[in-house]
This record gives sequence, C-alpha cells and structure tokens, in this order.
Amino acid sequence: MPHIVTRRVALAAAFFAGIGIASSAFAQSPSSNPLPSWNDGAAKGAITDFVGRVTHETGPDFVPAPERIATFDNDGTLWAEQPIYVQFAFMIDRVRALASKHPDWKRRQPFKTVLDGDHKALAALDARELLTLMAATHTNMTTDDFTTAVSDWIATARHPRFDRPYTDLVYQPMVELLRYLRANGFKTFIVSGGGVEFMRPWAERAYGIPPEQVVGSSGVTKFQLRPDRKTLLWKEAKVEFIDDGPRKPVGINRFIGRRPIFAFGNSDGDQQMLQWTADGRGARFMGLIHHTDAEREWAYDRQSHVGKLDRALDEAKTRGWTVVDMKRDWRTVFRFEDATVGTR
Amino acid sequence: MPHIVTRRVALAAAFFAGIGIASSAFAQSPSSNPLPSWNDGAAKGAITDFVGRVTHETGPDFVPAPERIATFDNDGTLWAEQPIYVQFAFMIDRVRALASKHPDWKRRQPFKTVLDGDHKALAALDARELLTLMAATHTNMTTDDFTTAVSDWIATARHPRFDRPYTDLVYQPMVELLRYLRANGFKTFIVSGGGVEFMRPWAERAYGIPPEQVVGSSGVTKFQLRPDRKTLLWKEAKVEFIDDGPRKPVGINRFIGRRPIFAFGNSDGDQQMLQWTADGRGARFMGLIHHTDAEREWAYDRQSHVGKLDRALDEAKTRGWTVVDMKRDWRTVFRFEDATVGTR
Repeated sequence: MPHIVTRRVALAAAFFAGIGIASSAFAQSPSSNPLPSWNDGAAKGAITDFVGRVTHETGPDFVPAPERIATFDNDGTLWAEQPIYVQFAFMIDRVRALASKHPDWKRRQPFKTVLDGDHKALAALDARELLTLMAATHTNMTTDDFTTAVSDWIATARHPRFDRPYTDLVYQPMVELLRYLRANGFKTFIVSGGGVEFMRPWAERAYGIPPEQVVGSSGVTKFQLRPDRKTLLWKEAKVEFIDDGPRKPVGINRFIGRRPIFAFGNSDGDQQMLQWTADGRGARFMGLIHHTDAEREWAYDRQSHVGKLDRALDEAKTRGWTVVDMKRDWRTVFRFEDATVGTR
Repeated sequence: MPHIVTRRVALAAAFFAGIGIASSAFAQSPSSNPLPSWNDGAAKGAITDFVGRVTHETGPDFVPAPERIATFDNDGTLWAEQPIYVQFAFMIDRVRALASKHPDWKRRQPFKTVLDGDHKALAALDARELLTLMAATHTNMTTDDFTTAVSDWIATARHPRFDRPYTDLVYQPMVELLRYLRANGFKTFIVSGGGVEFMRPWAERAYGIPPEQVVGSSGVTKFQLRPDRKTLLWKEAKVEFIDDGPRKPVGINRFIGRRPIFAFGNSDGDQQMLQWTADGRGARFMGLIHHTDAEREWAYDRQSHVGKLDRALDEAKTRGWTVVDMKRDWRTVFRFEDATVGTR
C-alpha cells in the first residue's frame, strides 16, 4: 500500500481509492454447534457466554431484541484485506478497463503508473494521486452505473494469491458468527471505512447483511430530474463522509441511532467504535481479530500499512476485550479450505 | 410560520429550528380488514391492490421481500404538522426551559420574541434568527442529553388545539398502513426533513419504526474520549444534511441504499422522493395526503407555509399517483376521535 503522509488526506484517499479500514472478528452458525469453524477456547467462549447472557430473559444481563445491535468492520474483519484493500484492487482494474476511452492515460500520471503495473510505483502513490484515481473510477457517473460496475467486477475479479473470487475470501468463522447473532435476535451491521456503495452490491450475498445495514464512507451525490421525468443520482468527485476511527461512532449514531452492544474490528481504525460500544450501560462485547496466521491468511499488526493494529491491541489487552488469535482460534479461515464446511 | 426568503437558508433553518417538512399518507391494520380507519374508495383500493400484486409470488408484479422498501415523510404524512411543525414547538418550549440559565435572553433577540410569546413576531423570525434558536436549543450538548430532552418533552408537552400529547396526533390510518405493509413483508422507513435525533426517541413507540429506519436532517457530531475513557458524541452548531426535496432521494440512497417501491408524502418537499420511487422498474406506489379536513384536522395546500402542496399535487394528478383526500378517504383521523378503534 502507498506510503501515506497525512492521515486526513489518507482517509479521504482511503474512501476514494476504496481503501477500507481493516478490523477483525470471529463466528459460528445456529444449531447444535453454531460456530463450527471456531476452535474451543477463550474467544469462542466469550462470544457464546455473552450471547447466552443477553438473551436470557430472566437474567440480569438481558437485552431486549431491538437493542441487540452488532457492528462489524469489513476489511480484515469480515474478509481479507491483504495484499491490498479489495476496493483498491477494484480501482486498479477499473483504470485498466477505462483506459481505452482515455488514450492520454498511457502518458498521464498517476494513470500511467497503474497501467504500467509497476507495483513499487503504485505503492508509492501519494494521497492526492489516489484521490485522482478514485475520482476517475468512482465518480462522475450515476449510482446505478457504479453499482453495475461493482457487481460486474466482483463477479469476475480474482484474488492474486488464492486465484478465487474475492467473495471467497470472506472469513467462514465470521459468517457463522453473523448468522449466530441474527438467530439470537441481533441486527447485524457493517461499519466500514470502505465505500458504502462499493460494499452494498455484494454484502447481502456474502454476509446476509442487507444494503440498509451497511454503513461506510460516501461521496456527495446529487439528484437530477431529466426533461422526460427520468431521475438519476449523480456521483460527484467530492468526499462526503469518511467512516473511520473517531468517525465510526459518528456514523453509527447517524445511520443506526443506537449504541451497539457488540462490536468487532481488527485495526486502530476500529478503536473508537469499540470504545463507544464499551461505554454503554449493561453487557457489552468488544472483539478484535488479530491476524496471526501467515500460512492460511496473513500475519500483521503493529507495523502494517494495511490494517495497522497497535493502540487498539494495547487497549484491548488493558480492558479485557476479546482478541481473536486467528491461528489459534479459527479451525477454518476460508470456506474453500475445508470441503466439509459446505455440508454442515 | 415565518416568512422565509431563501429556500436554502430556510432549509438549514428548517433543520435547526426543527421545522420538519410536511407530507401525507393513509393506513389500515393486518387482519380481516387491515385498514379499518380507511373508507372504501380509490385510495384504499390502490393500496390494497398494490400490496396484493407485489406479494403475489407467481404474479407478474411480484417483488421479493427484501426489496419491499416503503418510505414515509413524517410531518403532515404520519402526524399533524399544524399549526407549527412539532419540532418547532419543542424548540420554543426549550428556549423557555433554558431561559433561567440565560438571564440575558429576556433582552436578547431572537430569544426575547420567544419568551414574550409574541406569536406574530415569532412567525416573522427570519432564517438566521431561527438558526440561532436551533443552535441554542439543539446543539452544544451530547447526543444522549438531547435524546433525554426530546423524550422528556414528548412525554409532557401538549398540542395547543387538541390539548393532548403530540404523539396522539399521529394519523390512525397511517399507523394501520405501516402495520399492514410490515405484515406483508415491507420494511418501513421515515424519510423526513425533520431532525433525525428529534424523531428517533419516539418513532418506535408511535409508528413501530425503529431508530435505524429513520432518515432525517442532521447536524455535525464529534466523538470525544475523556481521560477516564468515557465517550461522548457532541452536537455541534453546524448543519450537516437537510433531508428535503431533491435531497430526499439522496438520503434514501445514502441510508437505505435501495430504491423504494412505495412512498408517501404530503408536500412539495416530497416530490422528488416520489419521482425517484416512480422511476424504478416494476410495480410502484406513490401517494400524497391532501389535507382537506378543517374540522377533524386542517385544510391547506397550495398557499400554506407549512406543508405547502402545489407542484407535487399537479404532478400527482398528471401521473396518476394516489392522492388521499383526508376528509373523504379517512374514516378516522386520530385514534382519540373514536373510542372503538382501541378495541380493534
């Protein structure tokens, strides 16, 4: 990922470049063993204990169903975010796809860098160059056309390491966890730094989370009524909201209007969402996924450009939040690893 | 209501002053006769016909349940908006409640006008003065404190004409309609020019619409973490989004991410929401409430400052949208009119 100097500009770029913010989680499915991809241990135990307590009607920690709000970061929490955020891969492919209509891009930066496929130069793009790429690939079109572009891409693009569709890179334990929570009366939301319009076209199929439960970064759109009464929403090249870090609680308040009782992330960009969740009254669950499995997925934390997990990890340890050690706690990471998963 | 010169400033004031945007609707309940407060006629027939068609699984107009998104304006559509928008009444009462802490308000405008109870002068306040009042009553506090202020007020304040709690002024036909739609797999949303944080504390009880399904105008909030790890969201004196007119489709796209198949309003501020709904593929329902009943409620349309219905009414007639004539189409307007309603 590019070396980024200014956090604020980087965040704007993150949205425009589709650089989501990483976080972490774990999961199970509703039945005799609702979380089959989780190994028995502290993390799984903390989840099932929490769900048991808040759903026990006569217990001291009971929470009425409408208040069972669970929020999840997306990149690095619900699916893989390495080697680059998926929305960034989309942006690169989109520059390539649009290049024939823009012959000047072969000579013009930052497009030339993308078209040359120079990974080193690509990683060195600055925030302003990323914004230029985002504007060229994500804006000046209708929302409907953007949705089509995302849907077409996600159906055909393949992850460079696993040579599979990106949606195969969702974490099976987290899919089970989402299902388990919903079976227990929770409403599950994505709260991501990624672009909300990038996630919505596939989140329902991948996670069972409908568009209206996806909170993310957004650009300005404008309504237009054409003379024939046809309507459209036009995506302008202007950032509206970056749903990351201290803006995650803001986004939760704006879109959901209730404080979560359960939140999962994997990076420092999720720290304030967990703080906000922790500070409510009654039983709370705060979880972080720690990427510790270089073999099945990736191992990274404090030094990573993508999904940096540093201060949030310290706070989790200090405050007793649940830290999922991917290598230790997940029996299965991806569904495709384990042919038996499909039959459960 | 004040005479307002500039539409844009007026809209900002509308949010800050709690001047929601009026619209209209009708309703029934799910059973043998799901809409008992509706008289038989074209409006009721159009609703039940539409719901029948989109839920008929083998019919040509079938819409899968997740896509059954229904959006409703609030002021004038789900509850009364006369003689002033309810949020405006809240603002006035709040100025009075806070006056003891601000002795200078007795001499300072625009506070003096409010404290003097001079209705004529109140109605003549300009947009900037309204913004000042909104900032003083709706901002520079935590979101939690604002929620408490709204909840306390709505539990005790009484409507000047009916001498009843404002939530008694919800339209019984619309409550029935919301219930009927939900019973038929619809997800019901409010999409209002009113402040989202003003509506959420009571919308679930009044309409069965949870906070996360309320879309409205909002101010900027900022997350703060105090040294003791306590968190708060601080409401700043800055408008963020005015969810009215052409911004209603924008708000729907941002918060819901799907185009409604059913939309109800009552004013020109709802026109674009109806245009956006009308322009989707497949079966659509667009409704407007026309306030025609001065005896049971109010009669107003093209000349009204509150809930002006002019261009939208013309478009509805041209395009065959459903126009509810309150006097003709509603057997009951308010639940308290009819002692038998409670037993149904």
